[in-house]
Amino acid sequence: MKPVKVGILGLGTVGGGTVHVLQKNAEEIARRAGRGIVITHACAKTVNKTHPYSTDDIVLTEELSEVVNTPEVEIIVELLGGTTIAREMTLQAIANGKHVVTANKALIATHGNEIFAAAQEKGVIVAFEAAVAGGIPIIKAIREGLAANKIKWIAGIINGTSNFILTEMRDKGSLFADVLAEAQNLGYAERDPTFDIEGVDAGHKLTILASIAFGIPLQLDKVYMEGITKITPEDVQYANELGYRIKHLGITKRTEKGIELRVHPTLIPIQRLLANVEGVMNAVLVDSDALGPSLYYGAGAGALPTGSAIIADLVEVTRSLTTDPSNRVPHLAFQAKALVDLPILPIEEIETAYYLRLSVLDKLGVLAQVTNILSDNAINIEAIIQKEPLAGVDHVSIVMLTHKVQEKQMNQAIDAIEKLDGITGKVARIRVESLDS
Amino acid sequence: MKPVKVGILGLGTVGGGTVHVLQKNAEEIARRAGRGIVITHACAKTVNKTHPYSTDDIVLTEELSEVVNTPEVEIIVELLGGTTIAREMTLQAIANGKHVVTANKALIATHGNEIFAAAQEKGVIVAFEAAVAGGIPIIKAIREGLAANKIKWIAGIINGTSNFILTEMRDKGSLFADVLAEAQNLGYAERDPTFDIEGVDAGHKLTILASIAFGIPLQLDKVYMEGITKITPEDVQYANELGYRIKHLGITKRTEKGIELRVHPTLIPIQRLLANVEGVMNAVLVDSDALGPSLYYGAGAGALPTGSAIIADLVEVTRSLTTDPSNRVPHLAFQAKALVDLPILPIEEIETAYYLRLSVLDKLGVLAQVTNILSDNAINIEAIIQKEPLAGVDHVSIVMLTHKVQEKQMNQAIDAIEKLDGITGKVARIRVESLDS
Repeated sequence: MKPVKVGILGLGTVGGGTVHVLQKNAEEIARRAGRGIVITHACAKTVNKTHPYSTDDIVLTEELSEVVNTPEVEIIVELLGGTTIAREMTLQAIANGKHVVTANKALIATHGNEIFAAAQEKGVIVAFEAAVAGGIPIIKAIREGLAANKIKWIAGIINGTSNFILTEMRDKGSLFADVLAEAQNLGYAERDPTFDIEGVDAGHKLTILASIAFGIPLQLDKVYMEGITKITPEDVQYANELGYRIKHLGITKRTEKGIELRVHPTLIPIQRLLANVEGVMNAVLVDSDALGPSLYYGAGAGALPTGSAIIADLVEVTRSLTTDPSNRVPHLAFQAKALVDLPILPIEEIETAYYLRLSVLDKLGVLAQVTNILSDNAINIEAIIQKEPLAGVDHVSIVMLTHKVQEKQMNQAIDAIEKLDGITGKVARIRVESLDS
Repeated sequence: MKPVKVGILGLGTVGGGTVHVLQKNAEEIARRAGRGIVITHACAKTVNKTHPYSTDDIVLTEELSEVVNTPEVEIIVELLGGTTIAREMTLQAIANGKHVVTANKALIATHGNEIFAAAQEKGVIVAFEAAVAGGIPIIKAIREGLAANKIKWIAGIINGTSNFILTEMRDKGSLFADVLAEAQNLGYAERDPTFDIEGVDAGHKLTILASIAFGIPLQLDKVYMEGITKITPEDVQYANELGYRIKHLGITKRTEKGIELRVHPTLIPIQRLLANVEGVMNAVLVDSDALGPSLYYGAGAGALPTGSAIIADLVEVTRSLTTDPSNRVPHLAFQAKALVDLPILPIEEIETAYYLRLSVLDKLGVLAQVTNILSDNAINIEAIIQKEPLAGVDHVSIVMLTHKVQEKQMNQAIDAIEKLDGITGKVARIRVESLDS
């Protein structure tokens, strides 16, 4: 059988890695897929050759539409980033009856509903394994591997930059800003790191995970996003003393009141596998009713791991070229007509345990006032750490772990605590999850 | 669309769990699959209802062939266990043009080549996700998720009973035999535990993993199998002191000389995720050239987890009913005609590091002799632990970690060491793997 012809939009880090792996493992891939998969057309202003590959048999152009409109190209790999031109080109490819493989989480989280509807209409596939957790086949695991299950919740380390920074802060006791600068030097963080450190990138990925887990439309605007910028070495240290690690998690949970969709730093027990996922690695923990907990771990970014996921999608699309569209795996795991619009809970409505760190000026009197406020708000304390003040420091930190309480109740308590005379500055608050099955 | 009709052979623990999940999550499953999946026929001498389900709409029989020969049944779920009747029924189902879903690792490892050839001939699918690592979608991850990759090696905790016993031995300092008895009481080990504790069950699973990783035929007879029966609390304790845990692993590795296929207790560094997989849980670590290391963790046995994998296969087969057989995922990941017969290395040819424990009567003189023997065999020592003898004990244990060496070299050295006058009993030898990428 003739090889499948693929057009690629972008030959940067990920595009270059993808072509490299496709060429290097061409024989292995064809032995699996039953036919070759070759990049015949590419649009690129710059060609990244960190990983070597040949462009001899590739028609190179700087015009996106030249690739998207080439009749013999059956699959388009979209690696443009952003949500404007990427959306246009994806929709144009679909309109041309081409399948699309994308690593663009922002695109899917923002315009996925529109894109999947267009694809459904045209009977083509938009595959996006590379959009979540890089090379880990997590989309496939959830959409297909767990097809028997009612999924209860997902908690994932899905932003490698944040995990690298938190790991370094713990290992070296460093400040957030210093590790960020180091991560930028190493190329683990972008020059503009906002999307990573403010939780936006994880928010995109969580949006996608929640949809394929629960069969709900993509709803990026309803995700609560909080990054790691306020985490201090002190918090990392106190968490450790309490038997926890601070991880930046995307969490989505099915509750009786609705779906939780939240991204934030989280204390998790040190003995959990997820607590031991280090550096830039990603991992996704899924709890579901038949299988129970399952975890998927691997590289969440990088040229070759992302290329691995893109090529897995290319193989799958290649196999599906002759299938009846109605019998394919649905884009969002559930048949388009079977998606349901479950309510998404605002962050104030979620219930979780908390880590609190207070800067106290006059320890003795204030602690009683603090515990009264907590008690008035029906918040139970599970553990307290108080240390002697350091020489020359006028305040002392008090750290508490609370039992589960609704976030709005905790907000009220924190407001009241911050108004106390003996409290200086803001109360540091980090949510705590046991990740019990 | 009408529901797909499924016949099930066996309503024991796994069969009962499968029907329970299929009925309980019928709506969720149909929303994904696009149509219902119902058990219409079952063959069972006894009906296990630990997990409740209704048999009202199921034709119950005690004749296997009655299910396998029912024309309207499109898929057979084979849960008979064993390799004789299970093989016959599977081949009969295939001959009748039916797809088969099985959890039977012994069947696939022993007769898989014959069964897949028959299925290929008939254009039907034999799906076996449940045969390896229970509910973890590891077959799917390797066959499809890693399709871009040249796989380097796989190391897996794929026998929950062994992992439970080793975990308990570590936590409680107990003897193997005592924990085995406990595991039998808890139902984690069979009345006849041979397959689990002698590494046979893991050998079945490793055979399957190696085939789908490297594109080689199933070759159960070439697997080196060693169980956990000789592990002592002393070994567990020494391993810990050296920064290792003892895990029972199935390991398959692509080397320049051939494929390694071996099941045995293994020391692995404590900081590896795999070292922290506890109790009956399973996990499979895969190293591949594009993705790098990836790990898949979950329940490796049990009615509901195994049911989860069986139903995932049922959904997949249901989707594939209308596909062109040549475009399906090949049974062993690679196209049948693209399988290659790479040589399998005998255990004497493999190269690994070793943990050795010697019982020494006269420490001073013997240690020099031992190190001379090791040095004569080009074996370098990485670490030694020697402890003062306990009061009233006439021998002392010396524990060593060696660098990598070929197994046959180590065998020679051990033979010579065991002949020394100052050495009493056998040398305990456990292989060591760093699991580096």
